[in-house]
Amino acid sequence: MTLPRDYRGQSCALSRAMEVVGERWTLLILRDAFLGVRRFGEFAAHLAVPRAVLTDRLATLTAAGVLQRRPDGGRREVYVLTDKGRALWPAVRALSDWGDRFYPSQGGGPRRVYLHAGDDTRVGEDGCCTGCGAEVPVGDLVVAPGPGAAPAGPDADPVTAALARPHRLLTPLLPRTSVSKRG
Amino acid sequence: MTLPRDYRGQSCALSRAMEVVGERWTLLILRDAFLGVRRFGEFAAHLAVPRAVLTDRLATLTAAGVLQRRPDGGRREVYVLTDKGRALWPAVRALSDWGDRFYPSQGGGPRRVYLHAGDDTRVGEDGCCTGCGAEVPVGDLVVAPGPGAAPAGPDADPVTAALARPHRLLTPLLPRTSVSKRG
Repeated sequence: MTLPRDYRGQSCALSRAMEVVGERWTLLILRDAFLGVRRFGEFAAHLAVPRAVLTDRLATLTAAGVLQRRPDGGRREVYVLTDKGRALWPAVRALSDWGDRFYPSQGGGPRRVYLHAGDDTRVGEDGCCTGCGAEVPVGDLVVAPGPGAAPAGPDADPVTAALARPHRLLTPLLPRTSVSKRG
Repeated sequence: MTLPRDYRGQSCALSRAMEVVGERWTLLILRDAFLGVRRFGEFAAHLAVPRAVLTDRLATLTAAGVLQRRPDGGRREVYVLTDKGRALWPAVRALSDWGDRFYPSQGGGPRRVYLHAGDDTRVGEDGCCTGCGAEVPVGDLVVAPGPGAAPAGPDADPVTAALARPHRLLTPLLPRTSVSKRG
């Protein structure tokens, strides 16, 4: 299912961005890609997005050069962020921070926190390490459960379960065998 | 028309954000609100969004506390960003910057640039003034046509025409009489 991409004003930068990432689910798919989700079945299980929609969104993002499809060494393929895709991190982070701030969890505080892999210190909303002050590239960020994180229940999907532990962004979140089928 | 808001994973900060701002047109409407667009007819003329969709989006944003509806002193109403709405600026800026970077205009360079009202100096993508180094609040930003801006033609809508000149964000872009009808 492809929604019409009919924003007028092609000369506007935000319109162009929204043509690529403004469809339903797209930013959530990209957020998962930053977290290290790579396989169709992993996205599908974590997001509970209809498979036809997921197929369409992955195709759109691949065609736009935001994701790249690669063989995973076995019979399947993985989707990984390109440099163009990684450049969306500030937008994904900004929207997540806004959600944390204005829709706080019951426990209070952010659901996820970001640490600088170099020194295990929190990285602020400005993308800078609160310890060393460095601007931290997305590949040097470690995501960890924050004070507002809900515990992953026994029925949690593999992605949710894996995110109960600190994990470096952009590195594969799950072993190759954890989610088996595309169909 | 209201699209279903059925993202699973209510505990995720980005999901909560996308429930509020993730529908088609919503971020473009908010971008216009930052530019100082306030009246129904102004949004409609600038975005060429179907009026039923605009009505729905403005109602959703008002119900969510992102926009506030106020009398404009005459017989009409205006929509202005609340503090919660203003907190979306980093996300709007990040998405616009991404669009400018990866979908450059024919002229090259950004379509719009942001200046610090205090010293008329460019404000970088990190939100800091490249002159004085201060983190600039959104209300102290002046938007001006950048090197990649397309000239506003004679048929330009009032919003596009007004943006050919530098304009301070969050201040009304148009005089009260410029766009007349809602219906």
